[in-house]
Amino acid sequence: MAFLAIDWGTTNRRVFRIEHGVVVATERDDRGASSLSPADYPEEVAGIRARMGDLPVLMAGMVGSTIGWREAPYVAAPAGLGDLAASLERIDDRTAIVPGVAVRDAANPDVMRGEEVQLLGAVEAGMVPPDALLCQPGTHCKWVRMVNGRIAGFDTAMTGELFAMLRLHGILAPQLKAPVTDGEPFREGVRRGADRDLAAALFKIRAAKVLGYRDDADAASYASGLLIGADVATRLDGTPVAILADAALGSLYAAAMETLGGTSTLVDSHQAFVAGIIRIRELQP
Amino acid sequence: MAFLAIDWGTTNRRVFRIEHGVVVATERDDRGASSLSPADYPEEVAGIRARMGDLPVLMAGMVGSTIGWREAPYVAAPAGLGDLAASLERIDDRTAIVPGVAVRDAANPDVMRGEEVQLLGAVEAGMVPPDALLCQPGTHCKWVRMVNGRIAGFDTAMTGELFAMLRLHGILAPQLKAPVTDGEPFREGVRRGADRDLAAALFKIRAAKVLGYRDDADAASYASGLLIGADVATRLDGTPVAILADAALGSLYAAAMETLGGTSTLVDSHQAFVAGIIRIRELQP
Repeated sequence: MAFLAIDWGTTNRRVFRIEHGVVVATERDDRGASSLSPADYPEEVAGIRARMGDLPVLMAGMVGSTIGWREAPYVAAPAGLGDLAASLERIDDRTAIVPGVAVRDAANPDVMRGEEVQLLGAVEAGMVPPDALLCQPGTHCKWVRMVNGRIAGFDTAMTGELFAMLRLHGILAPQLKAPVTDGEPFREGVRRGADRDLAAALFKIRAAKVLGYRDDADAASYASGLLIGADVATRLDGTPVAILADAALGSLYAAAMETLGGTSTLVDSHQAFVAGIIRIRELQP
Repeated sequence: MAFLAIDWGTTNRRVFRIEHGVVVATERDDRGASSLSPADYPEEVAGIRARMGDLPVLMAGMVGSTIGWREAPYVAAPAGLGDLAASLERIDDRTAIVPGVAVRDAANPDVMRGEEVQLLGAVEAGMVPPDALLCQPGTHCKWVRMVNGRIAGFDTAMTGELFAMLRLHGILAPQLKAPVTDGEPFREGVRRGADRDLAAALFKIRAAKVLGYRDDADAASYASGLLIGADVATRLDGTPVAILADAALGSLYAAAMETLGGTSTLVDSHQAFVAGIIRIRELQP
């Protein structure tokens, strides 16, 4: 029961050698899907096997997208680990890609690829109850309704991408260079963001500078608070939220939830991924 | 009573030769404040006088900002044409700059520079009642509460800037190349934008493409509708809105207001500017 699991994202990839349900070796690098062409993958995987062991390989993430090795068609929500295992995209008899999950609703469509293994793995590992609201912050923040241990539906908010654009381009960019930290400016932004009037609240960052009301040292944290606050305020529903993220971003979302009267728990996303991919391997036909 | 009025913006400038309250000549070019340094202005104005008449000059807009000729400090709202006329920044005895208007409220600050002449001029000319909600769409959309013929307060929404960023940068950019037009995709976007969940609604444009639900030909209009719909839904208060804009952008905002149950009238912003600047000249001490 030894195999190699690869969480193969857009910019990074992480490899786990798993033996009898335990991670015995890992490696991480920046050879993500955006830096590879489809023809590169056989050699990439051969190299991974040379370094990490000549074992079956199970991959998830952008490796299965149109910019990856080969497209693994989306499984429709509601979807559980069994549905993913039943729809693996097989490269050969010991190399396969886990599909993403789609909400196939023309009025409210959504897609994920890679996050589904972490999300369902968190439930599989008992880190999250089978009926829960999960939040996976990032460039594209996933908000997922888990029902009976399956992904019932989800929304993606491009909160991180909007913040990155504001930091790089446009009138606010010079004011948003400082690192984002939790504190009163961030939480003030969260409360204001909950009004969900982003286009006006953002401009007032500029006006506050021109009129001398706010220092640029606080502006990035305040702006991040605005965006995260709008995101969180829209989705909080009174139930505790399980946050899957690295500690820095996860704690900002947790602070925003606390500021808006919500509760949350932080879940280790790598541990969740490992639990999910092990279960998919067990369930595969 | 002949003089030259200059609406001197960031990217363009427009000169009006006004005699006895009537515009007798105009010119427009792209020598806006962003293409000039402070030292360029004396020669620029000398050139304008050589072409348009050796007359007193009254300027408004970014020419009075920190990136312009000389900073004309903001007048605090509430402000009327008399307040602007009393606070002209004088370069010499026949050359002056009209100040901008600021909301000096640390919790809700805002600034405008250039728009104030159009806004107050619209009231002065009888195009807008003295108590009204005015909307000036653009890169930074101004929403202005006029009370008793004075600017009582206002909010700036960076709706146009956000749309421009989305069109140029990030994951949606390749989908947003088509021109924006009024029609069902735009109005569908407006209705969805009124939910004010921009970060998620925007990502669904990507998901709709991936899943084959929406053609890119419609995506730009839909996305513009989302942003304008969120802006309009936040500000509509049951009273008719006076829109000051060019016909193309003004009609999109009018369509958004109609879609959300509001009413509006379109006001000619150049005519409003001329009415405002003539009155400031009359009122100057």
